Amino acid sequence: MPPDYTCGMTPHVVIIGCGFGGLAAARGVGRDGVRVTIIDRANHHLFQPLLYQVATAGLSATEIAAPIRHILRRQKNLTVLMADVRRIDPERHVVVLDGEEEVAYDFLIVASGARHSYFGRDEWEADAPGLKTLEDAFEIRRRILTAFERAEREADPAARTAWLTFVVIGAGATGVELAGTLAEIARHTLRGEFRHIDTHQTRVILLEGADRVLPPYPPELSERARRQLERLGVEVRTGCLATAIDAAGVSIGASIGSSIGSSRIPARTVIWAAGVAASPLGASLRVPLDRAGRVRVAPDLSVPGYPEIFVAGDLASVQSNGSPVPGIAPAAKQMGAHAARNVIALLAGRPTRPFRYRDYGTLATIGRRAAVAVIGRMRLWGYPAWLAWLFAHIYFLIGFRNRFVVLMEWAWSYWTFERHARIVIGESAAPRTDERQGP
Amino acid sequence: MPPDYTCGMTPHVVIIGCGFGGLAAARGVGRDGVRVTIIDRANHHLFQPLLYQVATAGLSATEIAAPIRHILRRQKNLTVLMADVRRIDPERHVVVLDGEEEVAYDFLIVASGARHSYFGRDEWEADAPGLKTLEDAFEIRRRILTAFERAEREADPAARTAWLTFVVIGAGATGVELAGTLAEIARHTLRGEFRHIDTHQTRVILLEGADRVLPPYPPELSERARRQLERLGVEVRTGCLATAIDAAGVSIGASIGSSIGSSRIPARTVIWAAGVAASPLGASLRVPLDRAGRVRVAPDLSVPGYPEIFVAGDLASVQSNGSPVPGIAPAAKQMGAHAARNVIALLAGRPTRPFRYRDYGTLATIGRRAAVAVIGRMRLWGYPAWLAWLFAHIYFLIGFRNRFVVLMEWAWSYWTFERHARIVIGESAAPRTDERQGP
Repeated sequence: MPPDYTCGMTPHVVIIGCGFGGLAAARGVGRDGVRVTIIDRANHHLFQPLLYQVATAGLSATEIAAPIRHILRRQKNLTVLMADVRRIDPERHVVVLDGEEEVAYDFLIVASGARHSYFGRDEWEADAPGLKTLEDAFEIRRRILTAFERAEREADPAARTAWLTFVVIGAGATGVELAGTLAEIARHTLRGEFRHIDTHQTRVILLEGADRVLPPYPPELSERARRQLERLGVEVRTGCLATAIDAAGVSIGASIGSSIGSSRIPARTVIWAAGVAASPLGASLRVPLDRAGRVRVAPDLSVPGYPEIFVAGDLASVQSNGSPVPGIAPAAKQMGAHAARNVIALLAGRPTRPFRYRDYGTLATIGRRAAVAVIGRMRLWGYPAWLAWLFAHIYFLIGFRNRFVVLMEWAWSYWTFERHARIVIGESAAPRTDERQGP
Repeated sequence: MPPDYTCGMTPHVVIIGCGFGGLAAARGVGRDGVRVTIIDRANHHLFQPLLYQVATAGLSATEIAAPIRHILRRQKNLTVLMADVRRIDPERHVVVLDGEEEVAYDFLIVASGARHSYFGRDEWEADAPGLKTLEDAFEIRRRILTAFERAEREADPAARTAWLTFVVIGAGATGVELAGTLAEIARHTLRGEFRHIDTHQTRVILLEGADRVLPPYPPELSERARRQLERLGVEVRTGCLATAIDAAGVSIGASIGSSIGSSRIPARTVIWAAGVAASPLGASLRVPLDRAGRVRVAPDLSVPGYPEIFVAGDLASVQSNGSPVPGIAPAAKQMGAHAARNVIALLAGRPTRPFRYRDYGTLATIGRRAAVAVIGRMRLWGYPAWLAWLFAHIYFLIGFRNRFVVLMEWAWSYWTFERHARIVIGESAAPRTDERQGP
């Protein structure tokens, strides 16, 4: 049991991670009587649901990110540290940072989230980057824009086709968003800007191991989503797994129960949107984890055996109303706020309460006026779903300024099809040696 | 002499570089009857006069950059290639790209600009990056923001002071802008956001080898600029040269004619704004260069011995009205447009004309309501100069959208002192080994 804090000491609450879970936790414990330290390896909170827009050059990084210490500047009892947490030592009540500095806590809220997972094929990451951080988004943006540039320079027709072929692996929300936006870029944004290639010949292929896109959605909406994707020009291949990925393309095979034969797609740009693995900090707690590496927390979000440690967001494996809480932003926010409330309860000598997930709906966008949404018993698709998605996302963006700027950006690109962030940063145009070999 | 193009062949004009000079040249030759190819290693045109704002987190990259092929999309006779030009072969009339592809030209306009120069001390670049490209700006931004983060984590007072000391080397326009903005960030933007450090204790030191800041300006305005810098909190040290730079700080000595003794400044963040060296492509022409590596062009901007090659912008060394044309954006624009006119003259069988530089004035900004300007015989400083600077820069920004967004950003940060682009991208918070040693 944690010490009794009613005797005058100022208890120290440490929060790891400032995503949706950590930020909600920081706001939740923001009051006199506690000291709070929030630690993140980035200096910014990221509005992750719009990260695919940065990767596809529709938004710039600063439109969906804000400095953590700026967001939380008014909480005078709160310190922000930009640091990488190496491990948690739950016996000694300390968190160990990258420079081996130790931060002691009385209460700990772990909200370090998840990264993408390659299901044991980590060597695929170099040729099929995933999308979790701003760095990832810049890398994917660089690859997408450079592919069209390389195609324009390429004399050999087969090599040119490989530069104009984009494969997105995984048809969850991120994969669907990326594929839909890529098709739009090729058909509309870049129209008339190239002289040697026809961007309409761009192929965007969306691979999914399950038998339908957006597997967590009702089958009816999966079918709607598929039709909307195909209308945008995306080739949807369900029941299909990547069996090999290299710089020249993707080999695909059938997933179990599918009748598709194996084949090879020559493609220079492959994006990974398939798997998610929880932050390795969960393992440092030495408590039972689930298959995805998430911590199996108690109903009150505390870690079994450590009532002073709570886990919130994508790192937590928890049930609510008999079903697992999904790994999405609203759930992370609710968990963060709940963990904070439970810390305050313990400080006040009250018992903690179990977490209840309130499902306000789920949304996935596909492209212009194309989306699917489940809101309570309502199922939306097409224009109405897209409007719901638009307003939900703008409403929840951090800070007035960003919200207003993003709305303007979107209004502008809606009418013009322009994408203002088509800026390649980070590498010169010089081809790397491994890029010179044909597919 | 170039071949006679009046007999029906479509002449090919190649432009290297899409800065102010190359872009003006591309627009100048944009008409039927020629084919144009513009080659740049970046995919974007950059509004370089505002690059310091990206480095100091006031603007994001996309606000001062636009895709070259988007800007020039309506010139249907024009092809954009994203490629690094390795060398020019003036005898064979070809330009050689990074993949050893050759592009043949009938006329060539070289506008590949300049990089910063370390006067033979290239090993300083790692510890004192310069500011020419968006990549440079991101790196400097990362260092500035991370320095405050590291200071907040640092327990040792001397090490903390070194993290809070910023040295800018060179008090030309870029150095003055960077130093003034850094002082503003420390005094205003970050106020109240840290818990362990007082950002008011930040030192910003501006070193200049000459005996005054902004040496190309009239001495009276140099003195005004110095006073404005000091009012913002910048320590200005003129008559001072860096004699050594490493990860822990800068050693300084007196320049000739100065009475300052040598000393050492422990500082973790050093920015180089001192020297400029012309693009190495000038040397591949094998014609006489000046001390800074610029091509000594004929009065009509053509290269002696090669009437079909013109040089525009920072790579050209040319006199106009008896004095050297300065290496600034308006001069590059005028040269690019003039080179294009001379190409068209040759195509029409007319003689070329000598270049005349029209001096519309020079401006340097220092901070909020602080700037100096020379416009004709008028000399401005303080608020009026700052307003002139503001409107000139917004007016010349590429494209309606950027212009409007930047104006809004500036209005917002003017009232709030906020800088919205305070996002660190590109490296984790983990300290590098070389950063762990104390100064």
